Amino acid sequence: MSDEFISENIKAALKNDPPGEWMTELPGECIRLSSGYPTPALVPAMQLKEAVIGLLEEEQDLPLHYLGSPRALKLKEQIQKRLGERGIRVLEEELLVTSGACQAIDLIARILIDEETVVAIETPTYMEALEIFQNYTERFISIPIDEHGLQTNLFEEVLAERKRKGLAIPRFLYTIPTFQNPTGTTMTEERRQHVVELATKYNFLIVEDDAYGELSFNKRPIPLKAMDKEGRVLHVGSLSKVVAPGLRIGWVTGATEFIHALDWFKKDLGHPFAEATMASFLEYTDFEKRLKILQDTYQGKCSVLLSALEQYLPESVSWYVPEGGYFVWVRIKGVDTSQLLTQALSEGVSYVPGKYFFLDQKEGTEFLRLSFSYADEKEIVEGIQKLGKVVTKWMELRP
Amino acid sequence: MSDEFISENIKAALKNDPPGEWMTELPGECIRLSSGYPTPALVPAMQLKEAVIGLLEEEQDLPLHYLGSPRALKLKEQIQKRLGERGIRVLEEELLVTSGACQAIDLIARILIDEETVVAIETPTYMEALEIFQNYTERFISIPIDEHGLQTNLFEEVLAERKRKGLAIPRFLYTIPTFQNPTGTTMTEERRQHVVELATKYNFLIVEDDAYGELSFNKRPIPLKAMDKEGRVLHVGSLSKVVAPGLRIGWVTGATEFIHALDWFKKDLGHPFAEATMASFLEYTDFEKRLKILQDTYQGKCSVLLSALEQYLPESVSWYVPEGGYFVWVRIKGVDTSQLLTQALSEGVSYVPGKYFFLDQKEGTEFLRLSFSYADEKEIVEGIQKLGKVVTKWMELRP
Repeated sequence: MSDEFISENIKAALKNDPPGEWMTELPGECIRLSSGYPTPALVPAMQLKEAVIGLLEEEQDLPLHYLGSPRALKLKEQIQKRLGERGIRVLEEELLVTSGACQAIDLIARILIDEETVVAIETPTYMEALEIFQNYTERFISIPIDEHGLQTNLFEEVLAERKRKGLAIPRFLYTIPTFQNPTGTTMTEERRQHVVELATKYNFLIVEDDAYGELSFNKRPIPLKAMDKEGRVLHVGSLSKVVAPGLRIGWVTGATEFIHALDWFKKDLGHPFAEATMASFLEYTDFEKRLKILQDTYQGKCSVLLSALEQYLPESVSWYVPEGGYFVWVRIKGVDTSQLLTQALSEGVSYVPGKYFFLDQKEGTEFLRLSFSYADEKEIVEGIQKLGKVVTKWMELRP
Repeated sequence: MSDEFISENIKAALKNDPPGEWMTELPGECIRLSSGYPTPALVPAMQLKEAVIGLLEEEQDLPLHYLGSPRALKLKEQIQKRLGERGIRVLEEELLVTSGACQAIDLIARILIDEETVVAIETPTYMEALEIFQNYTERFISIPIDEHGLQTNLFEEVLAERKRKGLAIPRFLYTIPTFQNPTGTTMTEERRQHVVELATKYNFLIVEDDAYGELSFNKRPIPLKAMDKEGRVLHVGSLSKVVAPGLRIGWVTGATEFIHALDWFKKDLGHPFAEATMASFLEYTDFEKRLKILQDTYQGKCSVLLSALEQYLPESVSWYVPEGGYFVWVRIKGVDTSQLLTQALSEGVSYVPGKYFFLDQKEGTEFLRLSFSYADEKEIVEGIQKLGKVVTKWMELRP
């Protein structure tokens, strides 16, 4: 029945090969190095409970309607304040609260992409963003990442060549310059300057996904948006990684006309109760203090993971050392990490095979993403031990 | 800057003329007969507070992640149970939880509409749905409503003529058969049978928006979905009108292939915390008892509004008498209700001008939508008095 009704372009999108159900149905005893979830002990469940109690006692039914909660209205100010700490100053009308970074990306895709649109992406990149963009276009320019993030020189070469040949310039570049998902890498300041200059020179927009930007082990890098003098950067952020993903609070900032268009397509998809709850939580939270604890915790867990990798993985295995965020990107030469996963899961450890982060999945077969955010330090060591065992065994069997 | 980047079809959509800011920025003293909000006294703020306390004490961080709350998983069962009460039996894989009915409609538009798609709508109809569909297509067939809902005979004539002429048959009909927004009308059982037969005969789908279906003053009408033997009906529902809109819990049920496609486009836009909170609330609520209270309250408020209309409006003013829901649809012959609104607002009462519910806004100038859901009985009487005064004065000045 569906075949004659579902639109053609949609049917194409449905042919994609997503990671499938295994990620959401891991047995309880499996050590989850796949989950990009915040560390459970630092999800402020009890403070959020207090925030809800305070909110509903004070505002009664107001946060439970479509509109009308004074607290929900304050969320924008609080986000503006957070952005200010990152050197990004935006007016209220330059900011749209969204249902996590994901809705922001989806709305951006909606207003900027039509079938002819070329989109530039980093390779590898956040799989959900990739899936979203693929729902709207098939035309991508894929620029590889190294340990210092997007290789802007390569990007410039591609742009120059396309210009010379009269080919379409991308409408926008989607980038996660800080503690990238999945590689954990961070763009150097020189490359940041370079990419902003390229946007001007070749006339494209930049969609900067900054979901991990506040989770720095050292200095917080300057966001591209803070360097943006021409309104070319749409900056996407989220409280999922620093408060709790389940509340689904994200945002996008950019030039007013873009925000207006995004808002039109967002329709009635605001979340008054979640927004008011978050605003109420932020009101009573020393956020810088909270960030410090998060940063220290994740730095500790990351360093435990890196040591364990040194100790338990064969020498041929390599990885990037992150300066923040949630992830370590690992390369196991000659091993298909999708095939290895079955073994890893039966040993009791999970990861995300690298291929899901690539437009051309074949490029990603030797990689895998480890997350140090969710598991605790003891589990991380055990998990890497298990992974080491599985990898070693695999290499012995297929040298 | 935006002009060269925003897609062409999006720019067209942005030219629509939405109701604007006045609806969201009414002064506190204004009597809101415009707001389709539930009655504040029956928004279960304190019970929801208890639900959150119970939930977070029991599940801790689980409902605050992307996935993993046992309670959130139960929401589907609870919705299945509610649907069962309406004669709709669906499997888990035939049900998708959405962020209110609005996300369901948006996702449906996304998978079913491309630029060539013809969509059949009732006239007038829910303005947000109309706006959503207009974001995807410009091709509509508009079928007028009378006091018994969609005029299915007229619809059949249109379909027969299009078939004869070789014109495209609509891919789907969007209808609110029960306590329609904005007219408050309900399709008779004969018309329901008829429209389901038409769907088979002319091979189209039906999107049934049932957001008000449980708010009946008497017997609850049978949903189209309960008559659907061929999987042609996508049934959209919501807990916004019977619990609280601010939690944004809605759903869509339909054939598995449709649900699969809708889910793909929904991506990471679930709301675990809101879903778990709702599930927790439902677990401890006698829902039928709650519905009885809601039905009695709204029936009382509706009858107060109807009496006040009889008493305070000139004789030439007419309206449909609803059997449930939130709305009364009023016609004031010869009066442009958009122009009248300025006067009404300065007198201290609001309504929604009819034109926003029409594809061709000129057809709606004499109509307005009154809501009896939000204001209390005393305010309703005062509001209608004010409206009567404004209408009478207008008629005296421009006879």
